[in-house]
Amino acid sequence: MSNFLDENFLLRTTAAQILYHEYAVDMPIIDYHCHLPAEDIASDRRFENLTQAWLEGDHYKWRAMRINGVEERYCTGSASDREKFDAWGQTVPYTVMNPLYHWTHLELIRYFGIHDLLTPTSSARIFDQCSELLKTPEYSCQELLKRMNVHVVCTTNDPIEHLSSHIALANQTSEILVVPGFRADKASQIKDPISWIQYIQDLAESVQMSIESPDSLLEALQTRHDYFALHGCMVSDHGEEQLYAEEYTRVDIQKVFDSTMQGNIPSYHEIRVFKSWLLYELAKMDHAAGWTQQFHLSALRNNNSLAPGTDCGYDSIGDFAIAKATAHFLDQLHQSGYLSRTILYSVNPAHNEVLASMCGNFSEHPIPGKIQFGTAWWFMDQIDGMERQLTALSNMGLISRFVGMLTDSRSFLSFPRHEYFRRILCNMVGGQVHHGELPNDLNWLGEMIQNICYNNARDFFRFKRPQNEANERIVVS
Amino acid sequence: MSNFLDENFLLRTTAAQILYHEYAVDMPIIDYHCHLPAEDIASDRRFENLTQAWLEGDHYKWRAMRINGVEERYCTGSASDREKFDAWGQTVPYTVMNPLYHWTHLELIRYFGIHDLLTPTSSARIFDQCSELLKTPEYSCQELLKRMNVHVVCTTNDPIEHLSSHIALANQTSEILVVPGFRADKASQIKDPISWIQYIQDLAESVQMSIESPDSLLEALQTRHDYFALHGCMVSDHGEEQLYAEEYTRVDIQKVFDSTMQGNIPSYHEIRVFKSWLLYELAKMDHAAGWTQQFHLSALRNNNSLAPGTDCGYDSIGDFAIAKATAHFLDQLHQSGYLSRTILYSVNPAHNEVLASMCGNFSEHPIPGKIQFGTAWWFMDQIDGMERQLTALSNMGLISRFVGMLTDSRSFLSFPRHEYFRRILCNMVGGQVHHGELPNDLNWLGEMIQNICYNNARDFFRFKRPQNEANERIVVS
Amino acid sequence: MSNFLDENFLLRTTAAQILYHEYAVDMPIIDYHCHLPAEDIASDRRFENLTQAWLEGDHYKWRAMRINGVEERYCTGSASDREKFDAWGQTVPYTVMNPLYHWTHLELIRYFGIHDLLTPTSSARIFDQCSELLKTPEYSCQELLKRMNVHVVCTTNDPIEHLSSHIALANQTSEILVVPGFRADKASQIKDPISWIQYIQDLAESVQMSIESPDSLLEALQTRHDYFALHGCMVSDHGEEQLYAEEYTRVDIQKVFDSTMQGNIPSYHEIRVFKSWLLYELAKMDHAAGWTQQFHLSALRNNNSLAPGTDCGYDSIGDFAIAKATAHFLDQLHQSGYLSRTILYSVNPAHNEVLASMCGNFSEHPIPGKIQFGTAWWFMDQIDGMERQLTALSNMGLISRFVGMLTDSRSFLSFPRHEYFRRILCNMVGGQVHHGELPNDLNWLGEMIQNICYNNARDFFRFKRPQNEANERIVVS
Repeated sequence: MSNFLDENFLLRTTAAQILYHEYAVDMPIIDYHCHLPAEDIASDRRFENLTQAWLEGDHYKWRAMRINGVEERYCTGSASDREKFDAWGQTVPYTVMNPLYHWTHLELIRYFGIHDLLTPTSSARIFDQCSELLKTPEYSCQELLKRMNVHVVCTTNDPIEHLSSHIALANQTSEILVVPGFRADKASQIKDPISWIQYIQDLAESVQMSIESPDSLLEALQTRHDYFALHGCMVSDHGEEQLYAEEYTRVDIQKVFDSTMQGNIPSYHEIRVFKSWLLYELAKMDHAAGWTQQFHLSALRNNNSLAPGTDCGYDSIGDFAIAKATAHFLDQLHQSGYLSRTILYSVNPAHNEVLASMCGNFSEHPIPGKIQFGTAWWFMDQIDGMERQLTALSNMGLISRFVGMLTDSRSFLSFPRHEYFRRILCNMVGGQVHHGELPNDLNWLGEMIQNICYNNARDFFRFKRPQNEANERIVVS
Repeated sequence: MSNFLDENFLLRTTAAQILYHEYAVDMPIIDYHCHLPAEDIASDRRFENLTQAWLEGDHYKWRAMRINGVEERYCTGSASDREKFDAWGQTVPYTVMNPLYHWTHLELIRYFGIHDLLTPTSSARIFDQCSELLKTPEYSCQELLKRMNVHVVCTTNDPIEHLSSHIALANQTSEILVVPGFRADKASQIKDPISWIQYIQDLAESVQMSIESPDSLLEALQTRHDYFALHGCMVSDHGEEQLYAEEYTRVDIQKVFDSTMQGNIPSYHEIRVFKSWLLYELAKMDHAAGWTQQFHLSALRNNNSLAPGTDCGYDSIGDFAIAKATAHFLDQLHQSGYLSRTILYSVNPAHNEVLASMCGNFSEHPIPGKIQFGTAWWFMDQIDGMERQLTALSNMGLISRFVGMLTDSRSFLSFPRHEYFRRILCNMVGGQVHHGELPNDLNWLGEMIQNICYNNARDFFRFKRPQNEANERIVVS
Repeated sequence: MSNFLDENFLLRTTAAQILYHEYAVDMPIIDYHCHLPAEDIASDRRFENLTQAWLEGDHYKWRAMRINGVEERYCTGSASDREKFDAWGQTVPYTVMNPLYHWTHLELIRYFGIHDLLTPTSSARIFDQCSELLKTPEYSCQELLKRMNVHVVCTTNDPIEHLSSHIALANQTSEILVVPGFRADKASQIKDPISWIQYIQDLAESVQMSIESPDSLLEALQTRHDYFALHGCMVSDHGEEQLYAEEYTRVDIQKVFDSTMQGNIPSYHEIRVFKSWLLYELAKMDHAAGWTQQFHLSALRNNNSLAPGTDCGYDSIGDFAIAKATAHFLDQLHQSGYLSRTILYSVNPAHNEVLASMCGNFSEHPIPGKIQFGTAWWFMDQIDGMERQLTALSNMGLISRFVGMLTDSRSFLSFPRHEYFRRILCNMVGGQVHHGELPNDLNWLGEMIQNICYNNARDFFRFKRPQNEANERIVVS
């Protein structure tokens, strides 16, 4: 009988405990995909209270509260920070067996040293205690990251962003490398012509040129791609229901472009054709720049028309057929010599084996694990989801070459998710040692775990400090 | 080493054993979806022998016998009850590791106190012994239900049914509340115009009006919906391959209606359009009446053209893409203010995460768990299936708000499936306590388990005794 | 704490150990689907070194090497056998947790008595030691099979093959029965008209007739089908993305045939129609001959246009919707009385429950388990894959009637995969006994395991020595 969240949490065998405590625990973190606001890091923001740090922007928690019957005013609405926290405190006991229950209590322990359970009874005390701490210099955003040994943070940014916070950070002497990630989703969302036309105008403005053709759209995106590269960007990211690999001609693209620019709603086929083209062209830019491209597939977004906005907890898991188009998309790039390092994620675990096996179709000497089956993500970021991802990856590929975990988070308090992942990984490996399914060579396996925790990501992404007056390009290590 | 089916069957940790024996075991049962014949309850039928009680209507058993090579005459055919039982007795040892093997022996123990294994050798003795008991008053249908502490039985009924048995039961002083469930599947099955036209005529007759338009079809269904409500109905149920959310106009529906009424076979698209409309309109009726709507998705029905009928063991699991249409269907209702309490089931476990996450898209203050991810059902009603459903639900939603198990059964002897479910649930929760993944607070977790076993369903469905001369509306508790 | 690959490898309970060591281990092997070259058996080939025996033709290993960043010249290229082996030796430690790691070391132990781990350090020594042994008469291909107690090998052959090695073997007095399998995939691949026309010409030549119509194509295939039957063939095999059951007329088929024969690329619909027809007609031939038909579904083949050829490690897992067409295809055969014994495999585990439940739709007295849910295969041929296949099968069908494992292999050293399967099976059954989920009757369960290992396949396939001058038809036992 173990105690809740004790030091051997999730580590069921001695081998697992040794692997975690002697190998994994001290490895730094490269959080190569998240949604942290760079401005909070640049300004080294201090939160006024725990609601700001924990609930602001966290659609996972809002969603749980809503399912529990809580009113919207306590989620994204006008209730006070204390009221919102109390509503969360009332919900937490009902999140039992959901990853939120583990995350919540791990975060209270790791950041604040609080070992109490969050309940309606303890809610006020915990709010006060944490809020006091958050106001101190030791709990600024940068300190929160350092506390978790975060070496690299890779944010998610629209191409039109100026990256001023990243630039400011590059001129600080911070130990933490903060780099942007290039996410051009809005450029492909022609489904809604009004928003898309507005976006194209904003993009045009950002590069001070006019965009009146597919070629000029690419030119504008390339300009921003170069700009991002200059400021340390090494990854792109795409959130799409699926990949697309329709056949098309220049004329086809011109037609869809012109028609959508005139405000016409494109057909299902036109959308697919346009995305086939744009994703391919963006992939070429990534290859030329030596970036890694990431595809986050299978989310079904914005399912609730009465939602107070996007990205606030109304998404779920899609079941699109993804195999054939993914294979064709990657093959076309591979054939043409344009296939970068790639990470394929799906939020639908029924795709695990499809993607894990897909990755083995495209390799390149001497890059180990060039095409990666991405870590369990979003809804799948829990014990079962991670174990299934790791199982599929190890059975269908080389887990030893895996670049490991990311948070995908909007919260500075979410880095114990790396610990969560590492414990699950060590438990899986240690369990196999315990049962004679792996050799009892913990040095060797411990080294593999350290590679998955940090070294593989370091070697794969090759994040560098961007060039500026103060800094030469220095490889992060 | 444990003994087969001993008191701690499926309960692998001490915590699991405590949770089951001290919290779960005594909770009553609300069987909110089953196929028991209300007339057998109203007449308090006594079975003449074990074949009548166990094999009559049980397509699970027929199917296993057929796979084992048994002739149809011993399943649905003309063999004597004793011959049929012997054929089943010969098959049982071959069902090892199938849930039938557990169910069979659990039922022999719980109802008849027989701890022997059913084999060709014991078959005759068991048949005689059980048949003798079944003839006694202590084994009437009502007594069988009481023996398992069943408080509510919700049957499955076509809108045209007169519900005479339900009415008779309402006038008895039975402790068991027996309510109808409204299942209008036949009204949407235009795929086969001949059967559909016949059904529309029967429906018209039942309401003594003519049905010559979509509007009059809805009027007839509404009349029956009201009638069902008057007799205690609180749930609808739909068995569909998937949900539908095509766009349509009144004219479209009129055309499909008229064309099918003339005997024309509708196109695939016409079927989808018609179902989009009818399911939406039925959902509005459910909302107005305060009912819960249930969708049982993804079954592939009647796959064998030589089968002796429908619902006799020739169905299997479909792999339709369900996410997008489900989201759109629910969103349309939600937007219009017509979304009732809803339960989404899929018999394909590859949909577990799709549906478990879908439920979180639509919430309503103050109803906890308004959209439910339905329990593992039919082919998935076994240890692996239940564990996967419970895992997806707990990871993607709030298991604490879950309305729990149902039998979906045609047999009065199948209620140990609730015990089976409860043991699996307690084992999962207890296992997490044992391993330090949950706090060791068995009072709190035991209460959650009692809620899942009974209280949540009581509060969610709000079944009441129907109004009649003898009874005021009284909330069941 | 167990030692790596010790005698109780994968056997976690005493019951599992007894079941494996006292019941499973000595059962002979019927490898009813593999890709071994019959000519190597007929000539009783001896390999010159371990690269020839282990890496030649093994796309599993090539794929792992490529993912690890190894150059193609060390996989399928011009490097020396020793260089290739060293490249493999360098990769093996990186395959940790992949089934290759288990297979590799099991094969070194079982065939060569080598208990060392294959690493860059041990690579040269292991290569030399095994290569020496492989040159001795005790390591000829036939001896390698006997060493693993293989009684029947069923190869995979194109209809145009002359089967000269099978004929030669039939005239030897070998203890091992080597029979052909009929795989007519090329006849249905009209997608690529150039290759298809060439194939039709080759087929025509093999039967010394001209093929100018659908009917003559069937006639030619029937001639070869008869020829294969004469030489002991009892199984057909089809590698298709999915099954097809489109409606068609004779005229439709004639049109597609003629058009493709003229070099026109058929439409997606034409391909589906043609395959619906041809697969149905081939199924009729199988039924008339009393053969078992196998369908290997859901592979996505040849995804890399720069690959050095086909079948060399560039395939992955597809996600086609397969349920409806499979049901319809089988029902049409069943209705017409042409449904043979059938085995349905999918390489996508998301299909497990679809296929496991599908099998129960079509039964025939007195054949137990007439439609089989095929064993975990290719990418799924690992612990998780096998456990999931066995779980789905036992929950949705009768595992007691399962025909068990096959290697699907191109390597004479891969037969420990049967051991792997048997250990996993015994562990699953034994675990249930240990936990009181099965009766503690190891004689009975051991018999079931022996049936799954060997007896069920023997009775199901009914492989016989082909008639020839030397041999009467003798049932293999």
